[in-house]
Amino acid sequence: MKISELARLVGGIVEGNGDIEIKGLAGIESASPGELTFATDEENLSHAERSKASCILTNKTVKASKKPLIRVENPKLSFLIIYNTLNTPKVREAFRHPTAVVAESARLGKNVWIGPHVVIGDGVEIGDNVIIEPNSVVMKNCRIGSTCRIYPNVTLYANTVLGRNVILHSGVVIGADGFGYVRDKDKIYKFPQTGKAIVGDDVEIGANTTIDRGSMNDTMIGSGVKIDNLCQIAHNVKIGKNTIVAGHSGISGSTVIGDNSTIAGKVGIADNLTIGSNVIVGGGSSVIGDIRDGEVVWGFPARPIREMKRQLAVLSWMAKHFKVISRLLKPE
Amino acid sequence: MKISELARLVGGIVEGNGDIEIKGLAGIESASPGELTFATDEENLSHAERSKASCILTNKTVKASKKPLIRVENPKLSFLIIYNTLNTPKVREAFRHPTAVVAESARLGKNVWIGPHVVIGDGVEIGDNVIIEPNSVVMKNCRIGSTCRIYPNVTLYANTVLGRNVILHSGVVIGADGFGYVRDKDKIYKFPQTGKAIVGDDVEIGANTTIDRGSMNDTMIGSGVKIDNLCQIAHNVKIGKNTIVAGHSGISGSTVIGDNSTIAGKVGIADNLTIGSNVIVGGGSSVIGDIRDGEVVWGFPARPIREMKRQLAVLSWMAKHFKVISRLLKPE
Amino acid sequence: MKISELARLVGGIVEGNGDIEIKGLAGIESASPGELTFATDEENLSHAERSKASCILTNKTVKASKKPLIRVENPKLSFLIIYNTLNTPKVREAFRHPTAVVAESARLGKNVWIGPHVVIGDGVEIGDNVIIEPNSVVMKNCRIGSTCRIYPNVTLYANTVLGRNVILHSGVVIGADGFGYVRDKDKIYKFPQTGKAIVGDDVEIGANTTIDRGSMNDTMIGSGVKIDNLCQIAHNVKIGKNTIVAGHSGISGSTVIGDNSTIAGKVGIADNLTIGSNVIVGGGSSVIGDIRDGEVVWGFPARPIREMKRQLAVLSWMAKHFKVISRLLKPE
Repeated sequence: MKISELARLVGGIVEGNGDIEIKGLAGIESASPGELTFATDEENLSHAERSKASCILTNKTVKASKKPLIRVENPKLSFLIIYNTLNTPKVREAFRHPTAVVAESARLGKNVWIGPHVVIGDGVEIGDNVIIEPNSVVMKNCRIGSTCRIYPNVTLYANTVLGRNVILHSGVVIGADGFGYVRDKDKIYKFPQTGKAIVGDDVEIGANTTIDRGSMNDTMIGSGVKIDNLCQIAHNVKIGKNTIVAGHSGISGSTVIGDNSTIAGKVGIADNLTIGSNVIVGGGSSVIGDIRDGEVVWGFPARPIREMKRQLAVLSWMAKHFKVISRLLKPE
Repeated sequence: MKISELARLVGGIVEGNGDIEIKGLAGIESASPGELTFATDEENLSHAERSKASCILTNKTVKASKKPLIRVENPKLSFLIIYNTLNTPKVREAFRHPTAVVAESARLGKNVWIGPHVVIGDGVEIGDNVIIEPNSVVMKNCRIGSTCRIYPNVTLYANTVLGRNVILHSGVVIGADGFGYVRDKDKIYKFPQTGKAIVGDDVEIGANTTIDRGSMNDTMIGSGVKIDNLCQIAHNVKIGKNTIVAGHSGISGSTVIGDNSTIAGKVGIADNLTIGSNVIVGGGSSVIGDIRDGEVVWGFPARPIREMKRQLAVLSWMAKHFKVISRLLKPE
Repeated sequence: MKISELARLVGGIVEGNGDIEIKGLAGIESASPGELTFATDEENLSHAERSKASCILTNKTVKASKKPLIRVENPKLSFLIIYNTLNTPKVREAFRHPTAVVAESARLGKNVWIGPHVVIGDGVEIGDNVIIEPNSVVMKNCRIGSTCRIYPNVTLYANTVLGRNVILHSGVVIGADGFGYVRDKDKIYKFPQTGKAIVGDDVEIGANTTIDRGSMNDTMIGSGVKIDNLCQIAHNVKIGKNTIVAGHSGISGSTVIGDNSTIAGKVGIADNLTIGSNVIVGGGSSVIGDIRDGEVVWGFPARPIREMKRQLAVLSWMAKHFKVISRLLKPE
C-alpha cells in the first residue's frame, strides 16, 4: 500500500511523498527500506530518521523530518491498526492430530484445531475456532469459549471456564487447588477447594502464570484483563475488567481488585483486601491494606506514592547529615 | 444427614431445629437451601444469616441466630471433617492409558492410574493407589510412595523421592539441577549437581513450583510441608515438618528451616542461613540473617516485626515534621 | 586413581599419603571412605576432617590435616575438573521415540535424541548431539545449536534460536509473546510481538523460567549467561555475556544488561534501563534507574549498597532514640 493509503486508514496527515509503496512494518532498529516504523517522541523520531525505514508514523507535535511522515493522534495505536489490517490471522481448518486423546463426551465447535498429544477430558465443551497447541491438557467439564488460543503445555483443571478470545501462554495452570489448610495441633488438614476458576472474554495470560480455583466460591478474572508471566492469582480472587497485572505479581486469597487498575511487576498483595478501580500499584510493592479508587501507591509496605518518595528523601537527608544530627541530638 | 447427626459427628451442640436434612456443604456466598455453611466470627455469622444456607457451623462465643446453628470449638475444622465424611475420594482402579510410555523395568504397585502421554523411566518405583495425570514425566529411578497424586505436566528428574500421600500440582518440577557454578577468569563452569530431592509424607506442592536436587548432598522437604504456587526451593535446602511456604517465596541454597514455621508470600531467604522452628516471616520480606525459634520477622531486610513497625512509624513521623526538623537541625 | 595422580591433574601439591586410591567424589556430609571431598576454608576443613572422606582438596593457606590433602589455588574448580575427568558424559546415539511427532521438513543433525511425545514443528533445524527429553515442544522454524539439552515439558515458540551447548530445564518457555498493549479509551489492544528470542552459546536456563520474544526487535541472551529458576526476561531485553541471574528475578521490557554482572535472587528491574557490566544487584532489590559499570546496589529502590546500609543504620538509630529525639525536636 502507498503511504497516502495507509494515512487514510488511520485518519492521519501525510508530510512528504505519499506515493511511496510500503511493504511491511518494523521496529526502528530492524526497519528495512520500504518499511514503516513509528516514533512517539522527538528522541525516537531522531532514531527513526537514522533508520532505513521509508516512512515514520508519529504524533502531531514533533518536528518535521526529511523522511515521509504520517501524523496521527496515537502513533502506537495507528501502527497497530495498520499491522492488523495487513496481518489478518488465518483461520485454521478443523483438525485433530491422531495422537490427541479426546473424550467421546467432549463437544467441539467448528474449526477447532487440536495438536499432537493434547488431552481433552470428559464433558469438555469447546467453542468455534479454538486452537489447542501440542501437549496441553484440558481436564473434565471445562468450558472454552470461541476463538481461544491455548499454547503448548498448558493445564486446565476440571470445571475451568474460559470466555471468548482468551489467550493462554505455555505453562499456564488454571484451576489448581488453592492454598487452604486448617491447622489443628500437630497436623495440617487440607481444606476443600471446590470452587471454579472463571476467566472472562479477551483475557491474555502469560507463560507459567497460575490461577487457582476458588475454595468454596469461585475465582473470577474479568473481561479484558491482561496478566503477564509467572503471576499467581490465589483462590477466590476477583479481578475487574481491563485490569493489568505485570510479571511476578501475586494476589493472595479472596482479594478483590476493581476495573482498569494497573499492578506493576513483582507486586505482592495480601489476602482479603479490597483494591479499587483505576488504582496503580508501583513495581515491587507489598500491599497490606485496602486501596481506594484512583490511588497510586508504592513501597514496602505500599503507601501513597508521594508519601513514599518523601520518606525516602527524608531518610536520605538524615543519613547525609547524620554526623551533625547525632551530635545535636546527643541522646543519652 | 440431619443437623443433629452432623453435630454428633463433630461433637457440636445444636441450637434450633436439629431435624432439618442437610444435602451438602457450601461457602457463605454460594450456599443454597438445604446446605450447611460455616462462620468463624460475628461478621461472618451475619453474612451467613443473610445467605440461603439452612444451617451454620459456628463457634461457641458468637451470638444466637434465627438459623439453626451447630456450635463447635473450631468451625473450619469441623466443616472439613463433615466435608471429608460426605466426600470420600473414590479409589481409581489400575489403569494405564495406551499412549503412556512406561519402562519395562519400572515397578508399579496396586491400583496405579497412569494417564495419557505419561512417561515413566527405567527403574522407577511407584507405590499403591498412585495417580499420575496426563503428560507428566517421571525420569529414571524415581521412587513415589503410595497414594501420591501427580497432576498433569509435572516433571520429576531422575532419582527424585516422594513419600506417601504427596500432591504435586501441574507444572511442578522436582530435581532439576541447582544453580551452582564456579567462575574462573572469563569462564563460568557448571558445578556438578548430583544429589537428590527428597520429599516426605503428606506434602502438597503448588503449581509451577520448583525444587532443585542437591549439589553433592540432598534437598529435603519434611513431612507435612505445604508449599504454594511458583515457589523456588534451591539445592541442599532442608525444610522441617509442617512448615508452610506461601506463593512466590524462594529459599536459597543450603538454607535450613525448622518445623512448623510459616513463610508468607513473596519472601526471599538468602543462602546458607538457619531459620528456626515456629518462625513467622511476614510477606514480601528479604531474609539475610539467621532467625531464632519462635521469632516473627518482617521487612527489607527482615528484622523483628516490632522493630520494623517502629522504624516505619518513626520514618513517617520524620517525614511529616520534616520542615521543623530540618530547620532545627540546620546541618552545615 | 591415586591421590598423587589426581594432584597432577589439577597442578596440586600432595600432603600425606599420595598412594591412596580414590574411587569417587562427594560433598563433605555424604563422603564415604575412598572418596575425595573439598574444603574452601578452615571451618569446612574441620568438617571434612570429621567426615569419612579419604582425601581433601583444599587451598594453600589453611592448616595441616591428619587426612591426606591436595593443595590447589581454587579447590572448588579443581574438584570440578576432577569430577569432569571421571564423569565424561556419554554421547547418546541417534534416537527418535515412535510417539514423537517430528515435522517432515525439520532437519536433524547427527546423534539427535528425541524422547516420547516430543513435538517438532515445520522447518525446525537441530544440530548434532542434541537431546530433547519427553513431552517438550519445539514450534516451527526454531534453530537449536549442537549439544543442547532440553529437559521434559519445555516449550520453544516459533522462530526461537538457541546457540550451542544450551541447557533448558523443565518448564522453560522461550519465545512467548511479550506483555505489550495499547490502551485506547475502554479497550486494550494487543501490540504485535513479532521479534524472536535469541539465546547464545553455553547458556543454562532454570526450571519454569520464561524468556519472551521481542516485540518488533529481538530478545537477546548472551553467551555464557546462567539464569536460575522462575525468572522472567521480558521482550527486547538484552543480557551480555556471562551475566548471572538468580531465582525469581525479573527484567522488564527493553532493559539492557552488560557482561559479567550478577543479579541476585528476587530482584526486579524496571523497563528501558541500562545496567552496566560487572554490576552486582543485591537480593530482593527493585531497580528503577540505570546502573553504571562495576556498581554494587541494593534496596527498595536499589541504591549504592553503602548508602543503603547507612540509611538502614540511621533509621535504626532514630527509632532507638526516638523518645529523646521527639522531645528535643518537639515539632509544632
